[in-house]
Amino acid sequence: MIEEVERILKERGKQIESELEKAVPRKGIANLNEAVWYHLDSGGKRIRPVLAILTCEALKGDVSKVMPFAAACELLHNWLLVHDDIEDGDRVRRDKPAVWVRYGMAQGINIGDFMSEKVYELVLNSGVDVNTKLELISEIVETCVRTAEGQAMDMNLRGERKPEEKDYMKMIELKTAWYLTLPMVGGAIVAGRRDLSGKIKEFGMKIGPAFQIADDLLDLTKGKGRGEAGSDIKEGKRSIMVVHCASQCSESERKRLFGILGTARGRTRREDIEYVRRLFEKYGSLDYAMRRARSLAAESKKTTSSMPAGLRAVLDDFADYLAERKT
Amino acid sequence: MIEEVERILKERGKQIESELEKAVPRKGIANLNEAVWYHLDSGGKRIRPVLAILTCEALKGDVSKVMPFAAACELLHNWLLVHDDIEDGDRVRRDKPAVWVRYGMAQGINIGDFMSEKVYELVLNSGVDVNTKLELISEIVETCVRTAEGQAMDMNLRGERKPEEKDYMKMIELKTAWYLTLPMVGGAIVAGRRDLSGKIKEFGMKIGPAFQIADDLLDLTKGKGRGEAGSDIKEGKRSIMVVHCASQCSESERKRLFGILGTARGRTRREDIEYVRRLFEKYGSLDYAMRRARSLAAESKKTTSSMPAGLRAVLDDFADYLAERKT
Repeated sequence: MIEEVERILKERGKQIESELEKAVPRKGIANLNEAVWYHLDSGGKRIRPVLAILTCEALKGDVSKVMPFAAACELLHNWLLVHDDIEDGDRVRRDKPAVWVRYGMAQGINIGDFMSEKVYELVLNSGVDVNTKLELISEIVETCVRTAEGQAMDMNLRGERKPEEKDYMKMIELKTAWYLTLPMVGGAIVAGRRDLSGKIKEFGMKIGPAFQIADDLLDLTKGKGRGEAGSDIKEGKRSIMVVHCASQCSESERKRLFGILGTARGRTRREDIEYVRRLFEKYGSLDYAMRRARSLAAESKKTTSSMPAGLRAVLDDFADYLAERKT
Repeated sequence: MIEEVERILKERGKQIESELEKAVPRKGIANLNEAVWYHLDSGGKRIRPVLAILTCEALKGDVSKVMPFAAACELLHNWLLVHDDIEDGDRVRRDKPAVWVRYGMAQGINIGDFMSEKVYELVLNSGVDVNTKLELISEIVETCVRTAEGQAMDMNLRGERKPEEKDYMKMIELKTAWYLTLPMVGGAIVAGRRDLSGKIKEFGMKIGPAFQIADDLLDLTKGKGRGEAGSDIKEGKRSIMVVHCASQCSESERKRLFGILGTARGRTRREDIEYVRRLFEKYGSLDYAMRRARSLAAESKKTTSSMPAGLRAVLDDFADYLAERKT
């Protein structure tokens, strides 16, 4: 998969960039156009546009026609991050000050809103026919609605002292899986294979949660470019490890765990994060998370068996890549 | 106009409400669905959906078909308010705690995002044909992009100590006029009169700024349900009165004026607001604003002369109503 991603980025990376520049010119209104590029230039793996392109290509669609939608998927991912960072109080993104830290919170909200509308502009201005445009827009809208529902559930869960795994799973399905699935669904639609969207969503609703669990784990090891490891603990996120650990540990341990999770993020100490990590280790919550990610990835691959061979190969590779990712 | 608005609200008010309830059920995810309704139930004049209906009706369109779009216009107006209140630090909206005060800032941002997507869902699920849907969506997207640009300009202007009237005018055209014009444009599109959208936009780019100036004035008299009069001064907004006054007053007065506007909103004293109001009176800035609103309203009526008689009557009435509004 990594080779495929690199091939696509080499072949199409500049085109994705130029689609984005067409939609949001680098020069424009101060604290708006430049701010979008401040964020976009900070990087990211561009996994979503690549996924749209790979899906379209595997289904023998016209890849040039999927480019605006691919760029739209990247922009969507990034506007969600811009707002997420404000909502979570994350000050660092991809090792740089987050947009809201650089431009202020008020401009930050507006920058995200602007990006969210440009997602649709990209599709509206693309070269696909009217029905395809409407189908793509419809998929984007549903995805954004589900993502917002998941985001609300995520915040609601942070008040929970006995978070249940089924609520956690529902939350990450809404918050993460939908918008990871969107590029594949859109790639299929542009390739004229709307009939596959149901199957692709089945795949996405397994691999998306696997991806989120891998992300939960990464936060404790690499810090994901958000300053330092343990950001999720400072935010009080109910990760899969928290959910698992809380169901296993003693009452006094649970009390301390949720005490730390409930502490305002600026006041969480390094030793608190260490305590939580050791508690996760004590109850095997890290191993549990890893097993859960792998089993979801394995389940996702069961859904691809009836897909066209080319697509199946891409998605199976993708499943392995995401569940094992190290960055 | 007021009679027309009341007639439409009597005939169609419940339908607007039920379109909104279809899109956002009152019960759903905690701190999300209920929060949208906390905001929507706080009132508002519903002027935008009425305008969409009146335009469609005047052009002999099928009013039942414009209802989802009319509801979408109301939802759009309201999500902008939800985010605006966070961006401006306004704690009171329609005499109740603003959404972000009631639900927290993080949920507040997400609630607005959710509403903004539901705008599109309303149009996607409406009973108009594919091309009409796409045209409506395209108009909404452009409107939201322009509004975000205007919002950024508004915030940028707050740093200006010599704000120019041309920048102020450009800003309110983007920030206010576009999304006041949208309901009329959409009403015409649903009625099959897309050919009128250019003319309607000419009208809107006059009446929209007139409306904003009337709003600037209202802030100093009625307080617009945002707690108390003078909210704009606390926020440091560059209103038309600020722009005018700063171009007329002495250097020392300007210094004090911008000193007050630059004070953090919690620290602006009642006597500061009184000082600014007296300064506006001394230099005739309130009269100037009133004259400007009236002359823009008069100009707007010049653009309606070539429109079909029924639409002309509606828009002329609307122009008088908006420029003279007292609440």
